[in-house]
Amino acid sequence: MDSTTALAWAKSKFHVEDVIHFQYGSKHNLKELQSVEKIAAHYGVNLNVIHLPFESFQSNLLKSGGEIPDGHYADESMKKTVVPFRNGIMLSFATGFAESKGASAIILGNHFGDHAIYPDCRADFAEAMRSAIALGTYAKIEMLSPFQTIDKTAIAKIGHELGVPFELTWTCYKGKDKHCGTCGSCTERKEAFQLAGVKDPTEYE
Amino acid sequence: MDSTTALAWAKSKFHVEDVIHFQYGSKHNLKELQSVEKIAAHYGVNLNVIHLPFESFQSNLLKSGGEIPDGHYADESMKKTVVPFRNGIMLSFATGFAESKGASAIILGNHFGDHAIYPDCRADFAEAMRSAIALGTYAKIEMLSPFQTIDKTAIAKIGHELGVPFELTWTCYKGKDKHCGTCGSCTERKEAFQLAGVKDPTEYE
Repeated sequence: MDSTTALAWAKSKFHVEDVIHFQYGSKHNLKELQSVEKIAAHYGVNLNVIHLPFESFQSNLLKSGGEIPDGHYADESMKKTVVPFRNGIMLSFATGFAESKGASAIILGNHFGDHAIYPDCRADFAEAMRSAIALGTYAKIEMLSPFQTIDKTAIAKIGHELGVPFELTWTCYKGKDKHCGTCGSCTERKEAFQLAGVKDPTEYE
Repeated sequence: MDSTTALAWAKSKFHVEDVIHFQYGSKHNLKELQSVEKIAAHYGVNLNVIHLPFESFQSNLLKSGGEIPDGHYADESMKKTVVPFRNGIMLSFATGFAESKGASAIILGNHFGDHAIYPDCRADFAEAMRSAIALGTYAKIEMLSPFQTIDKTAIAKIGHELGVPFELTWTCYKGKDKHCGTCGSCTERKEAFQLAGVKDPTEYE
């Protein structure tokens, strides 16, 4: 829901041509792919599916790792779901892709509520990466992160105003048929809709 | 020769377990792979060969791109061999790999002579990336770039002192049987050995 709202926000301001979806062996990768195919079609943008070779990476988020813990993101147990430097890798790849296509910016849906437990979600990381991206490209590609200072509840409100089809979005880390409703990611999604006073269209198990 | 000298330097100071070689569809990828296999065996380190999905990237360095220009690196024509944000992508991947393995640092053989024409070889990019890597990892992974302030001639001297088997290293962008001796990369290699007063063991076409 963060990425889709970021796309809706970007489309409301700029000309957007491409979206990138990364497949990296996560437990929920098939559900994400099905979701992003519908979202790209809805917004009329090119979908680029990129497979990242994370076979040697350790994380419970990956099929190769252990179970996804239940509970809240703040819990220490959620650390197990960190994929090391995932955002750095995705942003770097997106930057190279953008420069190849002659684009001037990349857009990221990270937000303030993004988990102090994940170092590559923090604002200071994002600022350093923003500099590296601008300095490391001819076009001085801009990394836009419109939700850097707001939380997921505010994203639910913005998405609602922009008419985001939230029913197409996927959040659950477990990747079963329906959202589990109990993993850290589902817990946060539910709370965001409730606190925003926006109808949650998600079917939970 | 830069990467191999960086490896020799690192082995002289630290415990080094892994090297990563990236295959990304460059014209010289097979020669590089043959070279790195011998170098990893020579130094007794694990070789990790990672395939990066650069199919959508534009560069004459890639098999999908046009001819490699001859001449000096400083020439405007060499811009065509830039692979957009390549160093950012490689460093990011290496960081995630290192954190997965419990390593404390990654080492990069970039140098001062590295081409003002390549934005992701410049010192300001490297500094921003160094911050992003430390901030974006639990272990505060350190990005070591021991040759940041010296040129390739100095690297030839250091490598010579450390006993680097330069005859195993590959530089040429064209990726034929022998080093072409005329592309920007070969031109620079030749000059470095000459200026360093170190015997150049390379067989040029």
